[in-house]
Amino acid sequence: MPSSTPYATTPVEVTTGPIRGSHKVYRSPSTQPQLRVPFRRVVLSDPAEPPLDLYDTSGPYTDPHARIDLATGLPAVRAPWLVWRGLDEEAAIAAPRDTLAPCPAPHRVRRGRADCVVTQLEHARAGKITEEMAYAAWRENLGREAATAGDVSGQITPELVRDEIARGRAILPANINHTELEPMVIGRRFLVKVNANIGNSAVGSGAAEEVEKLVWAIRWGADTVMDLSTGRHIHAIRSWILRNAPVPVGTVPIYQALEKVDGDPLALSWEVFRETLIEQAQQGVDYFTIHAGVRLAHVPLTARRVTGIVSRGGSIMARWCLAHHRENFLYERFAEICAICRAYDVSLSLGDGLRPGSIADANDAAQFAELNTLGELTRIAWSHGCQVMVEGPGHVPMDRIAENMDRQLAACSEAPFYTLGPLTTDIAPGHDHITSAIGAAMIGWLGTAMLCYVTPKEHLGLPDRDDVKAGVIAYRIAAHAADLAKGHPAARLRDDALSRARFAFRWEDQFALALDPDTARAYHDRTLPKEAHKLAHFCSMCGPKFCSMKISQDLREDARALEGMAQKSREFTVGGGALYVRQP
Amino acid sequence: MPSSTPYATTPVEVTTGPIRGSHKVYRSPSTQPQLRVPFRRVVLSDPAEPPLDLYDTSGPYTDPHARIDLATGLPAVRAPWLVWRGLDEEAAIAAPRDTLAPCPAPHRVRRGRADCVVTQLEHARAGKITEEMAYAAWRENLGREAATAGDVSGQITPELVRDEIARGRAILPANINHTELEPMVIGRRFLVKVNANIGNSAVGSGAAEEVEKLVWAIRWGADTVMDLSTGRHIHAIRSWILRNAPVPVGTVPIYQALEKVDGDPLALSWEVFRETLIEQAQQGVDYFTIHAGVRLAHVPLTARRVTGIVSRGGSIMARWCLAHHRENFLYERFAEICAICRAYDVSLSLGDGLRPGSIADANDAAQFAELNTLGELTRIAWSHGCQVMVEGPGHVPMDRIAENMDRQLAACSEAPFYTLGPLTTDIAPGHDHITSAIGAAMIGWLGTAMLCYVTPKEHLGLPDRDDVKAGVIAYRIAAHAADLAKGHPAARLRDDALSRARFAFRWEDQFALALDPDTARAYHDRTLPKEAHKLAHFCSMCGPKFCSMKISQDLREDARALEGMAQKSREFTVGGGALYVRQP
Repeated sequence: MPSSTPYATTPVEVTTGPIRGSHKVYRSPSTQPQLRVPFRRVVLSDPAEPPLDLYDTSGPYTDPHARIDLATGLPAVRAPWLVWRGLDEEAAIAAPRDTLAPCPAPHRVRRGRADCVVTQLEHARAGKITEEMAYAAWRENLGREAATAGDVSGQITPELVRDEIARGRAILPANINHTELEPMVIGRRFLVKVNANIGNSAVGSGAAEEVEKLVWAIRWGADTVMDLSTGRHIHAIRSWILRNAPVPVGTVPIYQALEKVDGDPLALSWEVFRETLIEQAQQGVDYFTIHAGVRLAHVPLTARRVTGIVSRGGSIMARWCLAHHRENFLYERFAEICAICRAYDVSLSLGDGLRPGSIADANDAAQFAELNTLGELTRIAWSHGCQVMVEGPGHVPMDRIAENMDRQLAACSEAPFYTLGPLTTDIAPGHDHITSAIGAAMIGWLGTAMLCYVTPKEHLGLPDRDDVKAGVIAYRIAAHAADLAKGHPAARLRDDALSRARFAFRWEDQFALALDPDTARAYHDRTLPKEAHKLAHFCSMCGPKFCSMKISQDLREDARALEGMAQKSREFTVGGGALYVRQP
Repeated sequence: MPSSTPYATTPVEVTTGPIRGSHKVYRSPSTQPQLRVPFRRVVLSDPAEPPLDLYDTSGPYTDPHARIDLATGLPAVRAPWLVWRGLDEEAAIAAPRDTLAPCPAPHRVRRGRADCVVTQLEHARAGKITEEMAYAAWRENLGREAATAGDVSGQITPELVRDEIARGRAILPANINHTELEPMVIGRRFLVKVNANIGNSAVGSGAAEEVEKLVWAIRWGADTVMDLSTGRHIHAIRSWILRNAPVPVGTVPIYQALEKVDGDPLALSWEVFRETLIEQAQQGVDYFTIHAGVRLAHVPLTARRVTGIVSRGGSIMARWCLAHHRENFLYERFAEICAICRAYDVSLSLGDGLRPGSIADANDAAQFAELNTLGELTRIAWSHGCQVMVEGPGHVPMDRIAENMDRQLAACSEAPFYTLGPLTTDIAPGHDHITSAIGAAMIGWLGTAMLCYVTPKEHLGLPDRDDVKAGVIAYRIAAHAADLAKGHPAARLRDDALSRARFAFRWEDQFALALDPDTARAYHDRTLPKEAHKLAHFCSMCGPKFCSMKISQDLREDARALEGMAQKSREFTVGGGALYVRQP
């Protein structure tokens, strides 16, 4: 149950300090020294191995020099970039009365003028590379500019980021009121991104726990977080999250609108929803999930489903439509929603309210009818200068995943796809981070730009801190597997560095390069805890005599054999690449 | 360190009792009442839902009526089937001296005569459906014979099993000396199978722990186990495992041969190896991994690899070849190996000693040169009447997985493929059950017949009991996702039953149908522990007001709306299936 005292839910402390085996560095593109782009640098024990800079979502929390005070919030890194952009100050909508105090960090609210270029999409169309675009490109490029001596082929350049945003194939979610943001880009030409859902429910957790979940999720690699809080303290919890979030924050505004009408879906109205949008946009929410695709006419298509409507927002809107026998007001008011989003540069994430919740319902008429509507809405959003991505399923067996990607690209004119999983079977509650990581890796490879994580608690309960980590790690695996399969130019550097460390028994380097250095080390140490074992040429899996890498090394260390091997290897290559060697 | 006292390593107790929410039933095909095929029956709380019989790998351990005594071993279910098959008794090779006593269960050793039909392949070619084939078919068919009223289309029939074995596209690993075996079939027309590796290493665990790992692995769904023990007690540990294994047991005989020559790969010889094969075949090992494809000429192809040779058996044989500058004796003696395997019906699992150990080395010349040799050996094995499957990688990025499957089918004349993972990235030590479940699901869908699990400890240490469960569950997920994607006729029954239970808030049914009922229930109970919550129409993930399934049900329960929906749904269907509804 949520605590009713401010004390118990006010955040005081979160996880800080470097991730084991790495330290924070900031690097700047040669032409823009004012941008300080963060990386996690792994220095390896072999002097022949160059240090490897890894993409870093963790924000100032892993910087030992940063002063972290949750009540003050993070530094406003974007503030200097925004002063030139024609933004007006405006008065904030009054916060709802709440027993939980919002974050006291100072927060000036701005709004883009109608006659100015405001959104990243508008800038991109105008040919302008914003600071955010340059920052995201440099980050995405993993600082390879110098290493590749000015050769931009195979590099992620600021111009590529601008171009992809201008085409609508990428978004850079960055509300002008979220100045604490370290910008990043979402699109299928870029690294596959991972979103982590946090947020309390009416039966669990307060602001303190949620801010720690945010910090914990980005520590392990979440690129964005969605605050899906429901219950009484939505506004206050979100203020704590936003002022302390270096990553884009998304929400589903209908949840708060529903709270405002005491949880009765039938009492929802455009007026309540509109006010909620503005309130959240002023706080700095970077993207809104809007279930405008759940049209009245689509609802009957779900009548024979095994699991009906499983999206919370979708089911709320479906009930509203059917009870009033009226078209979804989010659909009817979509142009007005876009006008609000444009003024603050809130990106739209078009919710798939009719996504399938079971293998039986995958790829059905309801799902694809909605997808076509989302395509229509995408083009409307673009006409208003809004950035937009499209949400996708859900539960889908492997053989039907590609159809989702293909249809989404076609129906939504290549707007970025943002999928939940998909889960590839229904039979593993308690392990759905795995059922869904399988689908996520596949759809990421096929072109999905961002993967919404699923935790082991999916279908069963509210995830705690451990579940958040398990979900993020499973999805970082899926995203990286997708990056490799897509051939992202920098993705394999880390695999290769880790594999070299593994083969050379540089255990500490192997841990440092791992997605989860703490667990890798702990597992190793469970059977071989001594420091000397960190130099051992084996582990307990095979023991000293049966370590294939050891034997393989012995083989190479025989210099004479090695020379012969190299010679033979050349002979094979010269010999026309015939792989199969016949017996004499 | 291995214990030196027999006491500490002699098994005394293992996990028994039904898996939560199910009970063991035995069913018989109508024409063969003497076969008692085990299933796990889940009886659901809704009387409208028929009980669901699940494939059951767990053996007598989950039968409360079974008397489990590890020193006696399991009942010899196959003994009555074997008496007619022309087998001679022979004297067992003396067990090596060991401080650990072998399992005292009585064990009569038999051997097939040269002039008789012995192997399942020979029977299948002769048009004979063995008891093992009928048993495996009925098991595989999940007892749907009655439910489908004699219509065999879409059913797994004994004749289909026989035909697939005769073509070499499936194997039924069943050593004539493993009478405790509950037969199963491995092939791509059948359910995707999962193997769990158990076995101690020189730095951990004894027989007691390994037998419990066996029982634990099959409890969670391992279809076969491989005993990869190294160290001093190989023979004794294996005897405990075999006499208590209701699933096929595989080994890598070179490990024991290496122990016999005090761990020096260069001292290996055909004589030592041959004796080891016979010793293990007499004990009842069902399949042997033989690294006969690591030919002398292939070794130089690994010289420039990032991770060299990562198969233990492969590296041992490569060292032997190179040091002696001689062809691999396993390759040269392959016909003799086949003769031994045929006499006991030990299936061959052709080891991929040169499988890639990193993304960098995937699909390289060494790997595919060996694969072509494995194809050659497959056809030799078939000519001797031996059953054979082919082992596969390893580490492979998603975009290169299909090439492995395609080449294996072509090179090895469609013999069953048995892959380790593959791991789709190198960067997640500590979580490689997930990196590899992704690749396993994909390659299973593409046609791999059995998936060798990977545990979270891969690359780091010897798996313990928890790791075994984590690995098996991850791989059951992968296998089931593959079965769904392949369209196995019975696979979706369980997903649909679970999804119906989920939508109807039948929590206990949802847990019972889950791959891991204990974890599903524990996760649910962490936030809502009361019994009354098992009937609640929400969980803590969304809370009562925001449960989409609850709202979706409310929607359906409005009878008028439901009627209207059904009517509208009919209109849609009649209206030519146009999915997209235009605004008027």
